[in-house]
Amino acid sequence: VLVGAVVVAAGSGARFGGPKQLCELGGRRIVDRAVDVARATCDAVVLVVPPDADWTVPDVHAVAGGATRSASVRAGLAALGPAIEIVVVHDAARPLADEALFDRVIAAVRDGADGAVPGVPIADTVKQVDAEGTVTGTIPRDALVAVQTPQAFRADVLRAAHASRPEGTDDAAVVEALGGRVVVVAGLADNFKITEPADLDRAGAVLARRAVAP
Amino acid sequence: VLVGAVVVAAGSGARFGGPKQLCELGGRRIVDRAVDVARATCDAVVLVVPPDADWTVPDVHAVAGGATRSASVRAGLAALGPAIEIVVVHDAARPLADEALFDRVIAAVRDGADGAVPGVPIADTVKQVDAEGTVTGTIPRDALVAVQTPQAFRADVLRAAHASRPEGTDDAAVVEALGGRVVVVAGLADNFKITEPADLDRAGAVLARRAVAP
Repeated sequence: VLVGAVVVAAGSGARFGGPKQLCELGGRRIVDRAVDVARATCDAVVLVVPPDADWTVPDVHAVAGGATRSASVRAGLAALGPAIEIVVVHDAARPLADEALFDRVIAAVRDGADGAVPGVPIADTVKQVDAEGTVTGTIPRDALVAVQTPQAFRADVLRAAHASRPEGTDDAAVVEALGGRVVVVAGLADNFKITEPADLDRAGAVLARRAVAP
Repeated sequence: VLVGAVVVAAGSGARFGGPKQLCELGGRRIVDRAVDVARATCDAVVLVVPPDADWTVPDVHAVAGGATRSASVRAGLAALGPAIEIVVVHDAARPLADEALFDRVIAAVRDGADGAVPGVPIADTVKQVDAEGTVTGTIPRDALVAVQTPQAFRADVLRAAHASRPEGTDDAAVVEALGGRVVVVAGLADNFKITEPADLDRAGAVLARRAVAP
């Protein structure tokens, strides 16, 4: 079964204050780290970059992203050949995903799921809030997971789900909307999304810990 | 208006592998940091410790906790005098809460809310999962916040809410169940809960950053 990866690095970094995918982390750019792990675990890799990108990653097929994250995923999907049977979508803003995590989501789809996502428990209590900032409810936490990327899917299911050009929070939501069966595999606490500069310090601390781990 | 703080440090640290409240963070114990900020912002502080605690914090009134977090909060509440009109409940496992955050939740209750909690956006997509690990739904993220402590309440409302000895995920849930109006104030991304040893590294990185901030 051929596995293709779509690494999404098309964000402008508006919240971050610049293109975070180019920030260095332990001597390598964030985007390079994301591509490395996709290359190590998938048969083909497509990198989705901003339309005006003046940077590349050597030896990786890059395509221009769209106006939204979903549009960028569709651009990546279109660049993967028809022989690909499983597609892994990964956000470059999560540079600490490891090969074992990619392998877990891929294995779950090989085993019959339409999609597989990494999930981690939510440490904080989660509440629903109205527009005025008043709490309207507390959500029972034991039924909730925070999900990450990489997310793996049957290629035909993901293509069908994206055919109507939907906008979803993540690709799994798009597949769920079509009635696909998405399963949760064990995520990685370290696999957080880089959203603000402080997250780079945190990621650096993780890399330092990994470097000395037995 | 007199403000009392209940600092809950009664956990056994089962998940952590020991009493995390005694771990050192930048040269001070986690519990000391939590007490420091409560002292700086509240008129009275009660510290809730494990029933078998062989440690103290100098010059703080300590009481023994109960079998659950809610029981421990009730033990702290019982030790605050009747003149206290606003109660702030804070988990010692969040040593990076700052004085401004305490002031924000207290101010919201002074301004008329029954309760006030710090909330931060949730970076990951949140999904509901069934017992088999299959996703059953994606929760619209813009209506959700992850809430932290310190949480402030009108003392009479919090005492009434705890009178039936309920168990809630947090104190706000207990007040919400009674119909109290709880509002969300801006939380602090750094104010995460120490739940595993890696979180100590992360907290250390935050302290280092604060030390050099302009």
